Amino acid sequence: MRLGIYRNRLDIVADILNVVSWKAKKTQIMYGANLSYKVLQRYLATVVETSLVSFDSAQNYYVLTPKGKEFLMAYRAYSRNNKNVEKRLDDICDQKKFLDGLCSKRQTSQ
Amino acid sequence: MRLGIYRNRLDIVADILNVVSWKAKKTQIMYGANLSYKVLQRYLATVVETSLVSFDSAQNYYVLTPKGKEFLMAYRAYSRNNKNVEKRLDDICDQKKFLDGLCSKRQTSQ
Repeated sequence: MRLGIYRNRLDIVADILNVVSWKAKKTQIMYGANLSYKVLQRYLATVVETSLVSFDSAQNYYVLTPKGKEFLMAYRAYSRNNKNVEKRLDDICDQKKFLDGLCSKRQTSQ
Repeated sequence: MRLGIYRNRLDIVADILNVVSWKAKKTQIMYGANLSYKVLQRYLATVVETSLVSFDSAQNYYVLTPKGKEFLMAYRAYSRNNKNVEKRLDDICDQKKFLDGLCSKRQTSQ
């Protein structure tokens, strides 16, 4: 789970699914995914309604469905790609700064 | 030279330097880099002032300097990286769309 940076909707769904992948009760998901009760309620409704997670009412557990597994696999690839692009963007910014410097009339004074 | 898409300052400098790399007169640069006379004047002043290009007044030619060569090499690497990131962003957008679909309540009607 990512802490200290803003999570978007897909990140939150993935965090919930990661906790649920070892089956979990509602409070475990709330703490494991670091969500308020109100936000958790909304997301749990979504992941159950979209069949990413199913609810085992006999045992009072939430469990990951095959579709949820598919989501997590795809999310991991997506997340890896995001990080790669972030790294490449840093490189591009450095290269751009260097090129800007080469054709800039203003020189640094030191 | 890129046609049909907006060129930024670095792209225009690189286009000028590419034409100048086989030494060129002002009008050759203007047509080769596809610039209006007014814009060309401004950019030529910049590339000469920043020593990317020098002017051979005896032969009335503009020639590429070692610093200009360095710029072109760095620009090509930068440009390649840009294209790679663009391609990766396309992939990421497709992955995001897929994930959004998996956790979206709204189903397509067909």
